[in-house]
Amino acid sequence: MSRVYNFSAGPAVLPEEVLSEAAAEMMDYNGTGMSVMEMSHRSQAFQEIIDTAEADLRELMNIPDNYKVLFLQGGASQQFAMIPMNLMKHGEADYIVTGQWAKKAWQEAQKYGKANKIATSEDKTFSYIPDCSDLPISENADYVYICENNTIYGTKYKELPNTKGKILVSDVSSCFLSEPVDVSKYGIIYGGVQKNIGPAGVVIVIIREDLISDDVLEGTPTMLKYKTHADAGSLYNTPPAYGIYICGKVFKWLKKQGGLEAMKERNEKKAKLLYDYLDESRLFKGTVEKKDRSLMNVPFVTGDKELDAKFVKEAKEAGLENLKGHRTVGGMRASIYNAMPYEGVESLVTFMKKFEEANL
Amino acid sequence: MSRVYNFSAGPAVLPEEVLSEAAAEMMDYNGTGMSVMEMSHRSQAFQEIIDTAEADLRELMNIPDNYKVLFLQGGASQQFAMIPMNLMKHGEADYIVTGQWAKKAWQEAQKYGKANKIATSEDKTFSYIPDCSDLPISENADYVYICENNTIYGTKYKELPNTKGKILVSDVSSCFLSEPVDVSKYGIIYGGVQKNIGPAGVVIVIIREDLISDDVLEGTPTMLKYKTHADAGSLYNTPPAYGIYICGKVFKWLKKQGGLEAMKERNEKKAKLLYDYLDESRLFKGTVEKKDRSLMNVPFVTGDKELDAKFVKEAKEAGLENLKGHRTVGGMRASIYNAMPYEGVESLVTFMKKFEEANL
Repeated sequence: MSRVYNFSAGPAVLPEEVLSEAAAEMMDYNGTGMSVMEMSHRSQAFQEIIDTAEADLRELMNIPDNYKVLFLQGGASQQFAMIPMNLMKHGEADYIVTGQWAKKAWQEAQKYGKANKIATSEDKTFSYIPDCSDLPISENADYVYICENNTIYGTKYKELPNTKGKILVSDVSSCFLSEPVDVSKYGIIYGGVQKNIGPAGVVIVIIREDLISDDVLEGTPTMLKYKTHADAGSLYNTPPAYGIYICGKVFKWLKKQGGLEAMKERNEKKAKLLYDYLDESRLFKGTVEKKDRSLMNVPFVTGDKELDAKFVKEAKEAGLENLKGHRTVGGMRASIYNAMPYEGVESLVTFMKKFEEANL
Repeated sequence: MSRVYNFSAGPAVLPEEVLSEAAAEMMDYNGTGMSVMEMSHRSQAFQEIIDTAEADLRELMNIPDNYKVLFLQGGASQQFAMIPMNLMKHGEADYIVTGQWAKKAWQEAQKYGKANKIATSEDKTFSYIPDCSDLPISENADYVYICENNTIYGTKYKELPNTKGKILVSDVSSCFLSEPVDVSKYGIIYGGVQKNIGPAGVVIVIIREDLISDDVLEGTPTMLKYKTHADAGSLYNTPPAYGIYICGKVFKWLKKQGGLEAMKERNEKKAKLLYDYLDESRLFKGTVEKKDRSLMNVPFVTGDKELDAKFVKEAKEAGLENLKGHRTVGGMRASIYNAMPYEGVESLVTFMKKFEEANL
């Protein structure tokens, strides 16, 4: 077995410890004589798995008691519909469009009401976060929507928008659990787990209880009502049980690392190593405004497409995988999520330096 | 490690061979240096996994070229909405209600149009399949819906209903790949994989191409349009990749067993062992009309609730797990899916005989 450094934007690297535990438990979980994959979701053993996962997540994020934690399916893309279907009581919402995923969310919301694009950074290929201190929030907006960390473009809100009292809904897929957050500032904070937490197929929705009700848009499928899942403790129907089990293991791992404060420190240290090098390199440069740089996704370019391709190819040969930028933007991108060790970023920077010397 | 015989109705037993392969590949899939959980769904390695899974499923079920195979999320419960949202062009459909899941599908469809219950077996606690040779099919019905194997009640259609030319939609969650089927008789044949194929979190939809279009009900979420997923080869957004990988391994295992003809033989042999004993037992009896008995789910009772509970408890102590009947019906139920070996059913029958002697 030889593991690579995997800079994939998602699905992405998971802690080795978690994977080897999962492998060891594959045929017999905790003396049950079966795999978690084979386990009834109504069994005591699985109930403990999901309850423990939720409790650990609550502890890690310090989630207030008036918020529910839901383990759902369909990814962020399904939330793009679920959010307006559940929240657009007045048929209107405000969207801040800072990348492809925020844009998709905004477009989907238009099916269900008036979705206003109140700010965007599309003019500069989403390379920055707009000033959100005094936006024209709509009087009737049921919520204000953001994508907090933009995976493709490598930007992150360093301050939450001033929503002028409106409910904030945030997609945190690519910065989930990367640093502490104040959950009480959000109405909904949600994300697909396949970037920073676990295997694709689970989306975690943390939602303030007063936003959960039967008062949803007409025609909302039962499975797309938050209340369906909240009332049933995420067990309305068979949940993505094995994925939840892996998420639970990652939560335990995060606690062992020292929680989100410790992760923030580690993530800042990793990102600094790479950004500092990008700032001094004569070959590579970052593509994002410095003030808005993500700790998780670091896009960079040489300015020469052929050289970019050569870099990605040679990096792969050196065991540094998935450094190609998103198909819609090109260049390179290193995703350095929680589970990417400092040594992985060191290896990358060392390789970039060598490549710079050889190709400048 | 000590494995039990797991009679769970779902999630359910998987082939040991599949689980041990998955464990061995957990840290490094096929020389990629990463787990399938960590793999970009846009990578060559994952594309091969999903393509191979689809090709093997097509071969196993002999799926005609004018059908698409979709790997989706949300379980059968989400299909209950997705089916009318995509197919109810004339606002009407016919449902045959043979159990709790068919009933839920029928209820959900009422959100989207006129859903007619054209037959039911609720009068006798769903213990039989109604005669469907000449039902009052509605002139404007866009489709006729059935749940082909009723997990909770243990019944199975031995003949498909005469739909009088209307499209047949069938939920085969609990009989998926248990025997050969003629796919060309269906418009849609679908099921959650967590009973007979893989881990919860994947639903496979096999759909005739002419039923896939942009002409869906207003307000249908992008993620709930079949066309979204058909156009993108099930990769519109991040799919439940690890689950698909396990399904693929089960397809390979089924091919090695000799395909669906061989599985049918094995399943008939297993079921016969149990049903023959039930028919001669003076303590236990089956609850289903003989002609409609499922090969997969075998409910039985002693007629005495306390004795039932004692049986379930003692069976568990003997390594025979999850024999308790569904919470809505009580008694016992042995689910004997593809991955349950003959020896498992033998052990069960041996144990039942001993229990009968001791308790009669």
